[in-house]
Amino acid sequence: MQGSKEISSLQNPQVRKIINLKEKKKGRESSGLFVVEGQREIKMALKGRYKLTTVLVYPEIFSLEEALALMKNSNTKPEFITLTKDVYQRLAYREKTEGILAVAQAKSHDPRSLALPDKPLILVAEAPEKPGNLGALLRTADAANLDAVLIANPKSDLYNPNTIRSSVGCIFTVPVAMGKSEDIVQFLKEKQIRIFAATLEDAIPYTQADYSGGCAIAVGTEATGLTAGWVKNADQSVVIPMEGQIDSMNVSVSAAILIFEAKRQRLGQ
Amino acid sequence: MQGSKEISSLQNPQVRKIINLKEKKKGRESSGLFVVEGQREIKMALKGRYKLTTVLVYPEIFSLEEALALMKNSNTKPEFITLTKDVYQRLAYREKTEGILAVAQAKSHDPRSLALPDKPLILVAEAPEKPGNLGALLRTADAANLDAVLIANPKSDLYNPNTIRSSVGCIFTVPVAMGKSEDIVQFLKEKQIRIFAATLEDAIPYTQADYSGGCAIAVGTEATGLTAGWVKNADQSVVIPMEGQIDSMNVSVSAAILIFEAKRQRLGQ
Repeated sequence: MQGSKEISSLQNPQVRKIINLKEKKKGRESSGLFVVEGQREIKMALKGRYKLTTVLVYPEIFSLEEALALMKNSNTKPEFITLTKDVYQRLAYREKTEGILAVAQAKSHDPRSLALPDKPLILVAEAPEKPGNLGALLRTADAANLDAVLIANPKSDLYNPNTIRSSVGCIFTVPVAMGKSEDIVQFLKEKQIRIFAATLEDAIPYTQADYSGGCAIAVGTEATGLTAGWVKNADQSVVIPMEGQIDSMNVSVSAAILIFEAKRQRLGQ
Repeated sequence: MQGSKEISSLQNPQVRKIINLKEKKKGRESSGLFVVEGQREIKMALKGRYKLTTVLVYPEIFSLEEALALMKNSNTKPEFITLTKDVYQRLAYREKTEGILAVAQAKSHDPRSLALPDKPLILVAEAPEKPGNLGALLRTADAANLDAVLIANPKSDLYNPNTIRSSVGCIFTVPVAMGKSEDIVQFLKEKQIRIFAATLEDAIPYTQADYSGGCAIAVGTEATGLTAGWVKNADQSVVIPMEGQIDSMNVSVSAAILIFEAKRQRLGQ
């Protein structure tokens, strides 16, 4: 294909830059760029209207023509690069390689840039500990067609390769914003969105709460739950009654139960 | 402590046997024994009335006295062994070591040995792919106080160290049975327990099903769903409407949404 170049050296500055983006949060944050790997994830990034600056393929697995076809109907015009096996293997993150990766531009994740409908249904996840948990939360948010996921006091950046992978690309299509807990509380109060805090303190069973207005369902970490600011500022504390030997459901499971109960009520079912 | 012995050699036959139990499904199945690691998990195994044959401690982290205290009020009389550092490190599975592990006797997991109440609420998980998924399902089953979890066409044995770990020990306290899918279907039919299959075929939204009688909620794998036998034999197919870009919630998340909707209805909320 015309216009594409080949990189065969691990010392190539562009390769070194991509390794930095893949491995370093700082590298991603200072450049505003990140790496997406895999056909499905790149498709989701395009659906989410992310701009790709560079698309890199290892032609024995994924051809330039296929890469070009993948970009069809998107408004992004990346540079195309073919890689030799060595270079591709150094850049690829996964065990099962797909032969394609891309560099993409980060978006703004300021809550105030979200386009929220009237009476939105929002999930707030405070300091999710593991990329796997955040990924599962985002898959649930996608399935429930939530209006936004707000990540309070994030512990990692959004574009951590593990988060992208475990979200199956939903990170790109679900409206996501981030911020300090106090700023997000403030934002929700301004918008008159009611906060439902998943916590034991002064809580009612989650099925007895009324989710009919604008709702933000807030969940904390599995280890320590929500911080005091959320509990204090909650309009309603809700609890999923735990009837077993241990008080510990997976955070993405708890969040899903709350979200789908809210949806059930809002649909009048 | 009197009666305890110390093992300092990796060549010790007892040590080699435990390594075999830890690493080999065959070893576990042929001996009917398995390894439990960690204080919390051992407590849960005792709660679940598992018999421990051997308790092994590395005294610099966990003393024999503490181990003995852990066994108090249980009806199990294991042999106590102290290990040197080298041997303990070879036997321990986790990165964060807790200084204690035990060998326990497997139980029968025949569905017919379950003590089920009238109108039970049961989860059926067909061929769960990852120990992490099975672990999360068991945590949810614990929280929901399900009457049983039936694992159909299991892909690994129940006592895989990863399953024990990811279930946070709930594997020991939740009533669990296993069997071939057709045998479990047969068992449920005999008991007149209605089968709710999570599948798209002929499905109604999960909120519209009636879970008031004896219920078995059946979920398949994330990749391929339930096998045809379950779909054919279902009394009702149910679906969680997917409103997003991808059709893929985590299986433990989907199962939890279905289970807690059934519970909500059964509690008349």
